[in-house]
Amino acid sequence: MLEDRIHTFTATKIVQQIRDQKLSAEKVARACLNRIFERESAVQAWQYIDPALVIRQAQALDQGPFKGALHGVPVGIKDIIDTVDMPTTYGTQIHAGHQPNKDAACVALTRRAGGIIVGKTVSTEFANQHPGKTMHPMDPSRTPGGSSSGSAAAVGDGMVPLAIGTQTTGSTIRPAAYNGCFGYRPTWGDFRMTGVMEAAGSFDTLGLIARSIEDIALHRHVLLGGTSEAQAVSSCQPPRVGVCRTQFWDKSDHATKSAIESCAQAMAKSGAMVTDLKLSADFDSIEQTHQRVSSFEFSRNRAWELDNHFDEISQILRENRLKHGAECRFEQYRKARKHCEDLRLQLDDVFRDFDVILTPSAPGVAPIGLNATGSYSFSSIWTACHTPSMTLPLFSGDNALPIGVQLVTKRDADDYLFAVSSWTCGLFER
Amino acid sequence: MLEDRIHTFTATKIVQQIRDQKLSAEKVARACLNRIFERESAVQAWQYIDPALVIRQAQALDQGPFKGALHGVPVGIKDIIDTVDMPTTYGTQIHAGHQPNKDAACVALTRRAGGIIVGKTVSTEFANQHPGKTMHPMDPSRTPGGSSSGSAAAVGDGMVPLAIGTQTTGSTIRPAAYNGCFGYRPTWGDFRMTGVMEAAGSFDTLGLIARSIEDIALHRHVLLGGTSEAQAVSSCQPPRVGVCRTQFWDKSDHATKSAIESCAQAMAKSGAMVTDLKLSADFDSIEQTHQRVSSFEFSRNRAWELDNHFDEISQILRENRLKHGAECRFEQYRKARKHCEDLRLQLDDVFRDFDVILTPSAPGVAPIGLNATGSYSFSSIWTACHTPSMTLPLFSGDNALPIGVQLVTKRDADDYLFAVSSWTCGLFER
Repeated sequence: MLEDRIHTFTATKIVQQIRDQKLSAEKVARACLNRIFERESAVQAWQYIDPALVIRQAQALDQGPFKGALHGVPVGIKDIIDTVDMPTTYGTQIHAGHQPNKDAACVALTRRAGGIIVGKTVSTEFANQHPGKTMHPMDPSRTPGGSSSGSAAAVGDGMVPLAIGTQTTGSTIRPAAYNGCFGYRPTWGDFRMTGVMEAAGSFDTLGLIARSIEDIALHRHVLLGGTSEAQAVSSCQPPRVGVCRTQFWDKSDHATKSAIESCAQAMAKSGAMVTDLKLSADFDSIEQTHQRVSSFEFSRNRAWELDNHFDEISQILRENRLKHGAECRFEQYRKARKHCEDLRLQLDDVFRDFDVILTPSAPGVAPIGLNATGSYSFSSIWTACHTPSMTLPLFSGDNALPIGVQLVTKRDADDYLFAVSSWTCGLFER
Repeated sequence: MLEDRIHTFTATKIVQQIRDQKLSAEKVARACLNRIFERESAVQAWQYIDPALVIRQAQALDQGPFKGALHGVPVGIKDIIDTVDMPTTYGTQIHAGHQPNKDAACVALTRRAGGIIVGKTVSTEFANQHPGKTMHPMDPSRTPGGSSSGSAAAVGDGMVPLAIGTQTTGSTIRPAAYNGCFGYRPTWGDFRMTGVMEAAGSFDTLGLIARSIEDIALHRHVLLGGTSEAQAVSSCQPPRVGVCRTQFWDKSDHATKSAIESCAQAMAKSGAMVTDLKLSADFDSIEQTHQRVSSFEFSRNRAWELDNHFDEISQILRENRLKHGAECRFEQYRKARKHCEDLRLQLDDVFRDFDVILTPSAPGVAPIGLNATGSYSFSSIWTACHTPSMTLPLFSGDNALPIGVQLVTKRDADDYLFAVSSWTCGLFER
């Protein structure tokens, strides 16, 4: 019976059971591979997977000493992140079959701690708008979100307990929410980006997707280069909560609004000081500002592909982001970048009065249609401001599809973000 | 007679003469190649060069329409920057023969504007301490500086008019100064880093090395994605100059001190308001702070090489930077990073009273010995503070070896940096 559920275990549980010799890395790997075989045709989460290579990694771990905090944990890697033993295609046929000559830093650090790289998860084209092949695990007519589409679908569907994605706008928080996962976007700058395709360096971070907050804290510890055991997620006092509906509130559906209200009520009932937070008018244009900065950077980062493979770039990417980016003059870009810097300092001040911001993760459940990946609006503010955030899979909407709520803390307060996320989840455990 | 000097032309002059049909791209390329053939055994500036490929690029330009602001200009590319048609080895035998599958953004943008990629210039190991094979063009017993060793030596020795380097501490300013070149470190964040090896993302920028300020302004324009002609370098009023001797003043030799004093005097004589600038005590530990941040990031970025090729890493890199970085805990790193952020804001305030800072580029002329690349102290402050800076090749010291003076302006004032650099050089023209 237990064996049937191994693929649903958290990373923390897997490591514990391997340490206790109740499980082997190979057994875990086979459980995940079985789940993938069973479900992949319906989900299409993987850009590349070589089961024999997965088994070999697991067997090597079983034959060696205990390696580290992720010993035996299967991990999915977004396909814009380089791997030395698997092709990396950045979500585009332009780079089909491309084999990097080394692992990205985050992949090497994951392996150093004993993680098993299961395969490459589907990314949208260059981690941008144009979707890959992945379908929502609960409804193939719906998007799994993007751009970390395969990473979120794989974790959500029980294929792997951990996956690395990235976020430049809302590319981790949104798909994690759609797929009923925990999704974490770190303080900008904490994780090294060697071997990760740059979309827009001013905003790019890795994003972690998992089944528990503890697992995210564990993986973060490893990616920061931690060698000893990860510290347990701390507990915290009832926080001062700012409920931030944002200028995008009217875009969100009934279930999302009601999730935020329910969460706020539960927090207040447990002693949190919950008040409404309205950001200053300076934040009104942040989505446009964010897009200006990221399009400018993105279009220059794709100079080689633009000049050598223009026809192989999707029409939507060419006519939107790349065109807008190319048309943006440096002075406009610099002004927009400065606006983001000013807002970061302003948000630092907001956090004098609040410990955490509660806000939607997305406007609703995963939308129908596979030609787009849903709205990133509820992430763009926080991404532009470099703050850490976490989506918690606490609610559901139409057709029992998942709805996340997003918690945001000030920059550099990632440990506290985990604590307050854990406190919040505790309110909903029976 | 003219033909003998083509290899010493500025980029601006080359483009103009090609437009005026006084020169062909092929003629320019051959002139540079001839200079390289003649001098390379003594200088060893190039990690990779394929003369036939250079000629083919030039001929293609001559046969096509006028391509852009760098039409026909030979450019050297530091070997930590990816090129689709030449190997990229990051200064280490670990990556010997590695062939990237695309151009870095800066390479693609240079080609888009008509630049000819001549070859890969020698980098120290992973753009760090351990030197490559390059020798100082004026004295083979001396270092050319590093880490952009080959880029600076190639421009300084008349092999190419432009080269791209990088700077994480003092890797462009120092070698440019040693080799009698103009060297420019941009405001952090302006140039995209796709395809450039990350050393320490919090400080990494490209660095441009050239024979004139105009050439640097031209190349910058291209790397920002500019398609029309570059604007001419502006003129400026006599500036308010802060002479910043820094805590490293006592490390600098007589010729360097006297270069700074002479430059300050010349500026004052021409109407500049020149005063001494002493930074607050908060800046005293900036070198250590910079090293803490960059070592933490560098060591995590090299996770794959550490875990797979440890024995092929130089002893000095393993026992210094990588060891220090590995030993640095995340909390220490974050504190150091925050210190840099605070100093940036403090330096913004300093620039309310000054238009430009005058400070040494290095403690002296290129030192004797090929087992090290000289001191980066006079760059670490400005690199940590994200300000743009330029070294001007206006002076000389022992054995007529070049001495640069460094100008620094506030962040985002790169255009003004060019103007005030040009004004300063004007004072020394007869």
